[in-house]
Amino acid sequence: MLRHVALFCWKLDASESDVRAFSDGLAEMPVQIPEIRSYRFGPDASLGGSNDDFALVADFDDAAGYQRYAEHPAHRHLIATLLMPIVAGRHAVQYEV
Amino acid sequence: MLRHVALFCWKLDASESDVRAFSDGLAEMPVQIPEIRSYRFGPDASLGGSNDDFALVADFDDAAGYQRYAEHPAHRHLIATLLMPIVAGRHAVQYEV
Repeated sequence: MLRHVALFCWKLDASESDVRAFSDGLAEMPVQIPEIRSYRFGPDASLGGSNDDFALVADFDDAAGYQRYAEHPAHRHLIATLLMPIVAGRHAVQYEV
Repeated sequence: MLRHVALFCWKLDASESDVRAFSDGLAEMPVQIPEIRSYRFGPDASLGGSNDDFALVADFDDAAGYQRYAEHPAHRHLIATLLMPIVAGRHAVQYEV
């Protein structure tokens, strides 16, 4: 299985409703992109062990499934319209599990 | 469930054997720390969608379980002896799944 992990930090002027709109958009991805096997995301819980604002963990059968997700029009649209306006930083890794 | 995600990038002089020793140390954590429910880690697969070197995703029943892991002597020892010598950057988020 190929796992994609992404951590985001938000711009100072990103609002709660902006983040909620992005979360709502993420929730649509498994509906739109059949290669997604698992898709769990959410805001940081503020436990004192973090330095980013939001996490996404997505599982795929293989690297090809991840690539189809990465390039899918619904995913590209989400990034362009709901992520880019609010994101200040992104860290990501894909790894075999 | 409380999920902890950490992404690491390595110092330029971190060797493959250094990273393997850290991985071997991580593999011991679920043996030593009973609060861990799931623990999956590994090096970046170099698919072109990443900007860090290594990922860890760990699940716990709740925030208290994560905190016991974070403060566990075996975990602190791993960080001090096998992570700190090689890590150049760390990003982390804990979130409810």
